[in-house]
Amino acid sequence: MASGLEQSGTGKSPNPSYVKNPHLDLMKEDFLYHFDLGTATHDLPAMFGDVKFVCVGGSSSRMKSFIQFIAGELKLGDPKDEYPNICAGTDRFAMYKVGPVLSVSHGMGVPSIAIMLHELIKLLHHARCSDVTLLRLGTSGGIGLEPGTVVITRQAVDGSFVPQFEQVILGKKVLRSTALDETLAEELLQCGKQLNDFETVIGDTMCTLDFYEGQARLDGAFCSYSEEDKRRYLNEAYRAGVRNIEMESTVFGAMCKMSGLQGAVVCVTLLDRLQGDQMTSSHDLLLGYQLRPQRLVGSYIKKKLNAV
Amino acid sequence: MASGLEQSGTGKSPNPSYVKNPHLDLMKEDFLYHFDLGTATHDLPAMFGDVKFVCVGGSSSRMKSFIQFIAGELKLGDPKDEYPNICAGTDRFAMYKVGPVLSVSHGMGVPSIAIMLHELIKLLHHARCSDVTLLRLGTSGGIGLEPGTVVITRQAVDGSFVPQFEQVILGKKVLRSTALDETLAEELLQCGKQLNDFETVIGDTMCTLDFYEGQARLDGAFCSYSEEDKRRYLNEAYRAGVRNIEMESTVFGAMCKMSGLQGAVVCVTLLDRLQGDQMTSSHDLLLGYQLRPQRLVGSYIKKKLNAV
Repeated sequence: MASGLEQSGTGKSPNPSYVKNPHLDLMKEDFLYHFDLGTATHDLPAMFGDVKFVCVGGSSSRMKSFIQFIAGELKLGDPKDEYPNICAGTDRFAMYKVGPVLSVSHGMGVPSIAIMLHELIKLLHHARCSDVTLLRLGTSGGIGLEPGTVVITRQAVDGSFVPQFEQVILGKKVLRSTALDETLAEELLQCGKQLNDFETVIGDTMCTLDFYEGQARLDGAFCSYSEEDKRRYLNEAYRAGVRNIEMESTVFGAMCKMSGLQGAVVCVTLLDRLQGDQMTSSHDLLLGYQLRPQRLVGSYIKKKLNAV
Repeated sequence: MASGLEQSGTGKSPNPSYVKNPHLDLMKEDFLYHFDLGTATHDLPAMFGDVKFVCVGGSSSRMKSFIQFIAGELKLGDPKDEYPNICAGTDRFAMYKVGPVLSVSHGMGVPSIAIMLHELIKLLHHARCSDVTLLRLGTSGGIGLEPGTVVITRQAVDGSFVPQFEQVILGKKVLRSTALDETLAEELLQCGKQLNDFETVIGDTMCTLDFYEGQARLDGAFCSYSEEDKRRYLNEAYRAGVRNIEMESTVFGAMCKMSGLQGAVVCVTLLDRLQGDQMTSSHDLLLGYQLRPQRLVGSYIKKKLNAV
């Protein structure tokens, strides 16, 4: 786990804190409302102290199937077993754990994943976790790629192809860097090559606040631009280095950087946006595509744990 | 339903379309991906043609309990019955229907509700619905109000207290009005007064893209401002007319206005942000608060249907 240690802190302390908030120390207790977990009601170090990999994704059922898959991969449990939802007291997010791996859903879009990440980073802090790697496993629209290609994000960019995240604090806009860990991205790419079962590339990921107009789709409830306008915009994105589009990566990158967590975004493309807007592939094919980030990240975690 | 008709269109046609997208007419079929419903696979007019009220809220379990509640209120079914989730093929959103009432979850935050509203507006279009009223039933943080107060939104404002929503289209920022229906807000206020069981007020609602730093909380993973800064900002919001803070109302208002749907936002306040940041009320008390928007909207729907 040496690489995790190098990336996650300043190197001054063996156990740097992921939170950057002086007010937290003054609080008697901390209730993580959207997880329905709290320092007064749960022994967080006992429950989570051994966590080294946190895998997150939009859909709760996908994160449930991931914990079953990784349990089998790491020989820590039967993939057919039922793993309890640690956040069963709320339907905002779902959370599962097996050994050093935590699997958490984050819903769709920047605000939803930001709520989850704030509470996750506090959870890791309260549980006194160290050397944690955070991996987002998602779906996306590709640009100029065969559907089913897995994209590892080099950097997350906004709708103008700039690697920044705009955070509003006390009504004022603050720009944050969204750069992700290059070494981790390269290691994941190598895992994809070794699996040798589907195409894996590194590219920029565009993150939007909207699935329809924000991603230049022609099939939303509203559309004020032409097919030609759409094509021009997506081609411009491609020339700027963008290979896929999703809805969480900028704030994910910004919060990894703020906390010192080593992070990566691994998304499969469900369609090529240069060819269309709707998901026309069969249900089974789409389900198969969604397993690819899980398999790639699974092989990465296995390799890391075996290397310790 | 006369007021619905006046609000929902130009008055030129008895059945104006809610979609504003010339491309939709050219599509052979339309697959509403995040609902797992489509024009090629489902008879949408038969399934949804009679819908007059669409009630939406963040949590899927809350929207399930709402359909049970409204079934009993309207004497259309037993509140103890199980109502099937129409979107059972996906875990992105949940959808329930009883008579003219549709109940749909939208997750947390502007991007998540925007995906749902795009597909909902297309669903209403494909199903040839008319005179539909859209009501968001939510939870929020209050400013200067007793916890448990229900706020009906006069207008949704951004973090600078301006009633606008910033939509990015082809990488360019477009500002949209977020004004909601004044008559509908007044009618809802009257229902609250007649129930006479909890405080109901009309006020501005601030909508943010973030729950922690975006709402000036001191208890997130990151915080770079003081308690004094926080207090100043929330007091400024109060003076500008803001009475509660949530995470969906600006895009809700903008999309109601764009589509011509008559819409309202009805949120209960779970705490007074001038007093703190954490939800310290008991679980049962919070659950009771969350029923208040349901009861208010339930009495409104009942009144409207009895008046036809």
